[in-house]
Amino acid sequence: MGKANYIDDFHKWEKEFEFFLPVRVRFSETDMFGHLNNTVPFIYFEEARIEYFKSIGFMQEWLLPESETIPVVADLQCDFLQQIYFDEQLKLYVKAESVGNSSVDIHYMAKKEDGSSGFVGRGTMVQISKRTGRGVPWAKEMRNLLVSNEKIEF
Amino acid sequence: MGKANYIDDFHKWEKEFEFFLPVRVRFSETDMFGHLNNTVPFIYFEEARIEYFKSIGFMQEWLLPESETIPVVADLQCDFLQQIYFDEQLKLYVKAESVGNSSVDIHYMAKKEDGSSGFVGRGTMVQISKRTGRGVPWAKEMRNLLVSNEKIEF
Amino acid sequence: MGKANYIDDFHKWEKEFEFFLPVRVRFSETDMFGHLNNTVPFIYFEEARIEYFKSIGFMQEWLLPESETIPVVADLQCDFLQQIYFDEQLKLYVKAESVGNSSVDIHYMAKKEDGSSGFVGRGTMVQISKRTGRGVPWAKEMRNLLVSNEKIEF
Amino acid sequence: MGKANYIDDFHKWEKEFEFFLPVRVRFSETDMFGHLNNTVPFIYFEEARIEYFKSIGFMQEWLLPESETIPVVADLQCDFLQQIYFDEQLKLYVKAESVGNSSVDIHYMAKKEDGSSGFVGRGTMVQISKRTGRGVPWAKEMRNLLVSNEKIEF
Repeated sequence: MGKANYIDDFHKWEKEFEFFLPVRVRFSETDMFGHLNNTVPFIYFEEARIEYFKSIGFMQEWLLPESETIPVVADLQCDFLQQIYFDEQLKLYVKAESVGNSSVDIHYMAKKEDGSSGFVGRGTMVQISKRTGRGVPWAKEMRNLLVSNEKIEF
Repeated sequence: MGKANYIDDFHKWEKEFEFFLPVRVRFSETDMFGHLNNTVPFIYFEEARIEYFKSIGFMQEWLLPESETIPVVADLQCDFLQQIYFDEQLKLYVKAESVGNSSVDIHYMAKKEDGSSGFVGRGTMVQISKRTGRGVPWAKEMRNLLVSNEKIEF
Repeated sequence: MGKANYIDDFHKWEKEFEFFLPVRVRFSETDMFGHLNNTVPFIYFEEARIEYFKSIGFMQEWLLPESETIPVVADLQCDFLQQIYFDEQLKLYVKAESVGNSSVDIHYMAKKEDGSSGFVGRGTMVQISKRTGRGVPWAKEMRNLLVSNEKIEF
Repeated sequence: MGKANYIDDFHKWEKEFEFFLPVRVRFSETDMFGHLNNTVPFIYFEEARIEYFKSIGFMQEWLLPESETIPVVADLQCDFLQQIYFDEQLKLYVKAESVGNSSVDIHYMAKKEDGSSGFVGRGTMVQISKRTGRGVPWAKEMRNLLVSNEKIEF
């Protein structure tokens, strides 16, 4: 299992991020080993991903009670590159790496104040039907929004 | 990015688990979409991994203030196979898949009450020096404990 | 602000508890000061309260999508009597202290393995209408269940 | 148990706050009832309290490994005045209400965007010795910092 096997060329990959959310490490997010607990980056991923979706015009419909679809996480991974500590100010970068029929592969990178990467990750989101639990293809306008933001060219 | 690329033969993989921790889904672990929030399986992974380590005689030393090493998570991944709901009683299975010089690859599987898998995952733990942050090779007796429990034969 | 001003006679108060939920302190629930983070007892309160409600035959209806009411927390308080550490096995005691028209005052006590109290607390739950957000009086049979379990006699 | 019995005159009390921390409600902080889970305000209290302490020049010493004292929470309470929802932007106000020998009583108020209060609370912090667990009186300069910020005049 190679580390961060979703990154071919780190330099190129890193440059494709534009959107980020600032996040400060909370005291309650540390653990008795004195650093950020390993379960917390996934909380940051979710918060940053939603802010990213909002920034490209998503989320609004998904949050309506009458919406027939919701986005769910199909998988998640995180590679921890450095220990992170209480009160660090991170930049949580997010990008849509590639867009499928009813899914999108989202990549993440957390930059520390010195510009180094604290952790990186990825995960696939799928739009599913609330009723059936099955994948629902992106509406054309949603797909266009995602594709115009995606980073892999075909 | 194929789903759960760390599993070759699901049937064989699934049968290699022996240790499990029972976990009941807390109300505070659900989110407004009505299911288990995607960040919570990593909390279960940590709890189940530590119970597993305790069961083979680890953890005790790592928790001593005078211990020179701590275990840290190098990477984590989770594949969400089904939605999980409030109050479900899960079995969190853990196994040491393979043992490195100062690391161990841990695999996870959450079984629902009907016997189906709710989510699966894996992640590498590394024993590091508190002082330098660098990997510290397993002591012989620790390595023996891990290897006698590991599932991949060489 | 006297400590735990909801307890007149600790000895008497403590003896009125019968129901408890066993809870083990998770690693992710500690913080960098090496003990249980102060925000976690409220997670235990919620889990123990729900198990208590289930034990007297509540919760089932509140969880139905078609239910017109939900229980909400009106207030919560916790007094921290001792530091709690990773891996401690606690008994989370719960009792219905007194029953109002649409509310119930719940008391909590966490016992450590040596029998001493780690923290105590209380909080009022109110049954509200999902639609209006206003309090909804207990149905007669629900009130009877609560009253037969309450600890203060009038 | 009167609601928010630590507030005599809400109007006067509310006006004494100056410091606040902006907090946005995370998706993972909601629960299946569709609102902010009741355990989360205490996470906000801790974050806002620490930012407040930092703003008056505290925290720095407490975080040093060689510090002989740490601040611990003696008690906490929260009164939930309204339901709070995903993505709300809150202002978490904090003030030092009164200063004891080794303790300080901290009050909290969360304002919603429309200026109404979502929840209020309070709690006593005590400075204790890491070694003995007993209260340690404030150093003169720390006490002066707290007292110059406290809101109750004697």
